[in-house]
Parts: sequence; structure tokens; C-alpha cells
Amino acid sequence: MTSPALEPVSLIIQGAWVLTMNREREVFSPGAVALKGAEIVAVGPPAELRKRYAPAQVLDYPQGLILPGLINAHTHAAMALFRGLADDLPLEEWLNEYIFPAESRLNGDFVYWGAKLAVAEMLLSGTTTFTDMYLFADHVARAAAETGIRAVVGEVLYDFPSPNYGPPAAGLQFSEDLCRAWQDHPLIRVAIQPHAVYTCSPELLQQCGELAAKYNTRLIMHLSETLKEVQDCQGRYGATPVGHLYRLGLLNHRLLADHAVVLSVADRMLLAASGAGVAHCPESNMKLASGIAPVADLLRRGVPVGLGTDGCASNNNLDLIQEMDTAAKLQKVHCMDPTVLPAPAALSLATCGGARVLGLEKEVGALAPGLKGDLIVIDLDQPHLTPLYDPYSHLVYAATGADVQTVLVNGRVVVQDRRLLSFDLAETLARARELARGLLAKKVGNLTSRLG
Amino acid sequence: MTSPALEPVSLIIQGAWVLTMNREREVFSPGAVALKGAEIVAVGPPAELRKRYAPAQVLDYPQGLILPGLINAHTHAAMALFRGLADDLPLEEWLNEYIFPAESRLNGDFVYWGAKLAVAEMLLSGTTTFTDMYLFADHVARAAAETGIRAVVGEVLYDFPSPNYGPPAAGLQFSEDLCRAWQDHPLIRVAIQPHAVYTCSPELLQQCGELAAKYNTRLIMHLSETLKEVQDCQGRYGATPVGHLYRLGLLNHRLLADHAVVLSVADRMLLAASGAGVAHCPESNMKLASGIAPVADLLRRGVPVGLGTDGCASNNNLDLIQEMDTAAKLQKVHCMDPTVLPAPAALSLATCGGARVLGLEKEVGALAPGLKGDLIVIDLDQPHLTPLYDPYSHLVYAATGADVQTVLVNGRVVVQDRRLLSFDLAETLARARELARGLLAKKVGNLTSRLG
Repeated sequence: MTSPALEPVSLIIQGAWVLTMNREREVFSPGAVALKGAEIVAVGPPAELRKRYAPAQVLDYPQGLILPGLINAHTHAAMALFRGLADDLPLEEWLNEYIFPAESRLNGDFVYWGAKLAVAEMLLSGTTTFTDMYLFADHVARAAAETGIRAVVGEVLYDFPSPNYGPPAAGLQFSEDLCRAWQDHPLIRVAIQPHAVYTCSPELLQQCGELAAKYNTRLIMHLSETLKEVQDCQGRYGATPVGHLYRLGLLNHRLLADHAVVLSVADRMLLAASGAGVAHCPESNMKLASGIAPVADLLRRGVPVGLGTDGCASNNNLDLIQEMDTAAKLQKVHCMDPTVLPAPAALSLATCGGARVLGLEKEVGALAPGLKGDLIVIDLDQPHLTPLYDPYSHLVYAATGADVQTVLVNGRVVVQDRRLLSFDLAETLARARELARGLLAKKVGNLTSRLG
Repeated sequence: MTSPALEPVSLIIQGAWVLTMNREREVFSPGAVALKGAEIVAVGPPAELRKRYAPAQVLDYPQGLILPGLINAHTHAAMALFRGLADDLPLEEWLNEYIFPAESRLNGDFVYWGAKLAVAEMLLSGTTTFTDMYLFADHVARAAAETGIRAVVGEVLYDFPSPNYGPPAAGLQFSEDLCRAWQDHPLIRVAIQPHAVYTCSPELLQQCGELAAKYNTRLIMHLSETLKEVQDCQGRYGATPVGHLYRLGLLNHRLLADHAVVLSVADRMLLAASGAGVAHCPESNMKLASGIAPVADLLRRGVPVGLGTDGCASNNNLDLIQEMDTAAKLQKVHCMDPTVLPAPAALSLATCGGARVLGLEKEVGALAPGLKGDLIVIDLDQPHLTPLYDPYSHLVYAATGADVQTVLVNGRVVVQDRRLLSFDLAETLARARELARGLLAKKVGNLTSRLG
């Protein structure tokens, strides 16, 4: 009797635990994932997978916790170069005296290196997909493609001239060109990203909606981030920001609303009925004192919710593992109920929830056959993760991004044993320091620095 | 002309930055600290110190940020062995079904290894002093002394029999013996630690107060942690917990109140007038849905405030750098004001603030001549800390405990380049896993486990 022929696969990765985050929330301990090129072909006990597959390579983490790569549903990656430039200030002063003057000097080179700096941080801390809204989005896309991370990018659009594309009218064409340029890339998606209801005319918003429909992509924008935004919108349009989008015919499954902090009950009902998603950014909302988004309530109403860090100027890091922790704890104290947003639900926000709000649930957000090989390994052999009773709890409440050991995107090992393999970290850090010195030398806005 | 003789010192440690946290909040860049044995003799620019001192050893961190070791003002170290045992539960169920049954099985060996596990995590994440309230406090003291961390320990006292000292009456004698046993140790202090107003009779509290006065040490207890505690106290004693202590003559500079979440304006005025300190534990208060302590208001009123993680069953880590971040952000959103608790103020809580509430301000909490050599080095050469505009901002908002590179306690290098030097980490992790398996085998309370 001969054993049946084994199916060749490119890689089997195995660990003490696999959290699949699939529909059944299966957990394997020990567990393994088999990959053929960019795709997952099987997930299960290592012994079973080794009976069926002949792997070209095996990665074995006897103390590793394997889970889907994390999905950052909202950030401005290149703002990594502005991290710590200005903190603890009133919002208007922060924007007008620091952030806007700094951004007025932007160019493609700055955005490219800022995005690479952010990608280094994101990959090393377990993020395998990020959703970016910024200027010079073509350079963000290039940085992501070169560094091997998955990204949904979009050029920020508003009623003012842009240092990138020039007059407002050129923004839509720029976005359309971007959609076409990247439409066949395995890692990059382009979304249409008007900035907000207070910076975009109803006409621009509607044109954005049409473009998103034409390219079958997401319409992503800041929405109901602060009470001031809501009050101004009501004064100007006689409707809340959510109501305003509803009237404009833009409240549908294509919409991804960033922040969604200040929501009336009617807003929540409209969101739930529409199929639109929300990108929850708790740390940014806390640091800028915007408020606390009613995420537990939105989830109860069936609104799809992902998790975002926002940019580094208002967080100030891109660590989604810390963000899950904050999201869970903040909802508990907000609702005065320790049972809301338990650890598995917090992890859902950063995995399958993020995939859903981006329309990527058939590609990423879980470990299952047919999905892409985006996964991460947490190193459990550490005092703050020992002993282990519940892997979800350790991941959300005790771990940080620094516990990420190995990262795969699209089946490619981009971080191994905490070393970045897909691009030159030292060069990126050196360029980042150089660009920061240049920014300070220009004495932009109120910038002062203790930088040596 | 001969140069003057250089004064011999044991160590000069230098880095890109030194944040002294002294009264003037001096910052040196680059900066250095000179130590003679356990004591700091000078802080300043490296060139100046090298002109005055001949060091036996030099530690040079060209990309390092040097600051005082962090002070954990409230924890239950041995609960590191319960981390992740039960989360996301209503408080009563969590306590009665999981924590109390688990604690009823405690013994000195469990507490000793649990404390060592916690010390490993604390030292590696930059904590050099911790304040512990637990059972078998003699074993906590022994674990701290052996591992080379500074600690304020205390046996938890209440009106019930204890698995350690037996009948309630024996608790005071146990505490007094503990005070005597450790009174000459360079690292260990003993405080008197009644559990709370709802578990201790007025008589026990007063006896505790007398004992604290006799040994000139702190009286440390949970106070006003939840609304239920306040309401029950009002029902039973006709006063808030703060008012109750005031009537008992216990509200004075010796008191360190853990949590202090639910405070009336009168409570805040009483606290401020008394000189008592507060240990703020924001992550535990969020996770257990206790509420948000009015820390910005307490600071405005002049109440000394330190920062605590609480135990690992309700946080679930001992990382004070993350706790500073949460403390700052939580106050901002609580007050709806992004300017409250700016980064330097958050760092004060975990350094000089902690020293002050413990009465240790003449020993630790800042880098200044005459203080003890408790200091840590943050490794700035990382993507999430590059570029650097403001070291306070990076430390509080972007770093975590994993960025701690080197740690000195009492002039001794206990962590160097992220390796624990003062005790055997592998042995500690192995014993922790073994004790966890034993706990689960006993099927204590509702314990179920996915532990392999």
C-alpha cells in the first residue's frame, strides 16, 4: 500500500495557536496554515496538513500565535514624519499653526519617504493592509507596492487648490488616473477620498460618489468627527453630516465613514440601514478630545466597523494591537459595562471587520482557504504573555506590536524574527531624519524643535 | 600646568537625551549621568561630566533617551499568574467566580513566583519601583530583593481570615513583623495596606493608621473605586469613603488612595487639604468599567498623583509607558480638552509624582545629585520613534515598554540591551507555566482553559 501523493505547496507555517477569525471563529492549538504562492490552501492541525501537503518551506513557531494580518482602516501614513511635531494643543491651533503649514510644503518625495517610514512601523507591528488618505497618493501607492504591504490609497479631495494636482477640478481626474494606473496590481486598491462635508461642496461629493461607482470602489471620508462639524453642517445644510450624505444619495455600502464619533440615534439608524461602514479611531479621538464613538451601539445595530489609528500626528503610533486594547477598554468605560467589546470582538475590528468595511472580505481579514496569505505571528515566549489561558485576551490586553515576530503579505515573508526583509530600514530612517531637518530649517508655522 | 585630578565614579551613562524630571525639568541633549555606587553624583552634558569624573565604566547610548526609572504606584504583582484567566465579565462574577476562588488557593510559593514573573515584565518595560498590595507580602518582598527591583510592599488586611496570617487579628502583627524585618533593606519598604472601606471595619482602619504612624510609613488602600463602593459606604457610615476616612482621622499625608475614581467636589477638597496622595489606574478603571478618575482636576487642586497599572487580572499588563499614554488621552476626552495632561505631566505621574505619593521623593523619581541611581534608557533608533521633534511626546504617545533598552536600579545594571541580568528569566517562565497548569488542574471556580 502506497501513501497517496502529497500536494506540493510553497509554505507551511505552524505555531502553538492559530486564530482563524473565520466565520466560525475556529481556533487550532497547535495550528498551521498551508500556502500556495499568494494564497491560503488549508488551515488546521499541523499533523493533518503535513499528511496532505509537501511544503517547499516550513516556518515553525512552537511558541507562536498565528492570526490574520491586521487591517488599518484609516490613516495618513506620511504623517509619520510629523509625529510629535505638535501635541496637547487646541485643535484649531494644532491644525492652523502646525499641521497645515507643514503640509503646504509637501511634495511627492516627502510623502514617499513618509509612507515608507510608516510602512516599516506597520509591518513590524503586524499591520498587513492599510487604508490611506493623503496628498500625493500616487507616491503612497508606489511606496506600498515597493515595500510589499497591501494598501487602499486615495488622493484627498477638497474645494481648495492642492499642492499635488493644483485646481480642485483636477482632483477628480487625478483620482480617476490613479484608479486606472493601479487597477491590476495585486496589492494596491484605489478609493475615492473626499476630505469631509466641511471642506467639500455637495457637488464635489456627488462627483466623488459617481467616480467610486464607476470604478466599483469605496468612497472614504471623515464623517461626524467632532461636535463642531455636526453643528456647522446643521447650520449650513440643515442636516447632520450623515443626513447630508443621505440626501446626496451617498449613504450606501460603498461609503466608509472615518471616525463617526458624534452620531444621533437617527444617524445610527441611517448608517445601519445603508450598509455603510465605519472606521473607528479611538486613540485619535481621545487625544484630540473629539469624543467617544458609540461603537458598541453601532455593532449592535449591525453597522460594519473597522479599526484605524489615524495619522501619527494625532495618535502617535500606528500600532493596531494597542489600538484594539484602547478600543475595548474605552467602550467598557463609556458604556459603564465591562462586558461590551470583549477581546474577540476587538480583534474582529482589526481583522474581518476591517476587511468588510473595505470590501476586501473575499481576500483578507481571516485565515481560510482561498484567501490571501496575509498573516502574522506573535511571540508568546515573554514574561508579559506567560502563562497563557486565553490567546484572545493576551493579544488584545497584554501584547503590543513589538510582540510581532513574523509577517507575511500575499504569501511573501516581509518580516522574519522582527527583521524587516522587504526593504532597507536604515535608509528609510536616515531619509526620514533628513526630511525632518529640512522641515525645521524652513521654520514652517510655529515649528520649534529640540532636534539636535 | 596640570589638569586637576578627576574624581573617580563607578559609572557614567550617556545618551542623546537626558530628561531629568528634576524641579526645573532640565533636559540635556546630549546628556549624561554619573553614579558612585548606588547614588547619582552629577547630571549634565557628557563633555562636562567627563572633565570632572573618572568613571570605572561607561555606558554609551548615542540613540538613547535616558530618564528616571518609572514608579508603579499600585499593583498586585503576583496576579501576573492570573492574567487572561477571566476578562470581559461583570465585576461580581469576575471576582466571585474567578479571582476569589483562585486566590483562596494561594500560598507563598505561588506569590513568590508570580511576583518574580511580574518583576521580569516590569524591569524589562522600565519600571524600577513598584507598590504592591497582596497576600504573602513577605514573599513579594523576598522576590523584589532577590531580583534587584525597588518595592513598597504590604500585606493586604481585612476583616476576614487570610490564607496567609490566619485570623484578622493576626494581620496587624504580621504587618508589624514585616516592617521590622525589612527596615534596613536598601530596596524594600513596607507599608500598611488595609484593603478598602467595604472590607475593613473602622477599628481595623484606625489600627492600621496607628501602625503606619508608628513605623513612619504609608497607609495604602483602595478608595472610591466604584459608585457602588461610595453608595454602600454612604448607606453604612453616612459618608463617602473619603469622608469616612476623614472622620476616622486617617486623611493625611500618609494616605495613598488607590483609584479614587468616584469623588464628589467635597471629597476632592478634603483630599487636597489633607496632603494625601492618589494612585491613578486608568486602564484598570476602564477595563472594569469603574469610571474615569478626575485626575486633571485633582492635579489642579494640588493633590499629589502617581500612576499605577493595578494587577494583571484587570489591565492586563504592567507597562507604565502605555499607562501614561492612556492616562493622558483619557483625561483629554474626559475633559473634552486636548490641552489637559500634556506629555510632560503624564511622565510626571510615573516618575516624580509616584515618588511623592510614596514619600520617596528624596530617593527616586528624578535624576539629580544625591538621588538613587534608578534610571532607564529608551532606544530611539526605531521607525516609530523617528524622526524626533520632542522626546516627551515620543515617550508618552509613541513608545511602549518594549522600547526600554537598559535599566539601572540603585546604581546596578539589571537590564542591558533588553536582556534581564539580575535573575533567571527562563526558570521564572517555566515555573509560571507550571503553576498555571496546577491552578487549572484544580478546576478552581469557573476556570476552563484552552491551555494545552
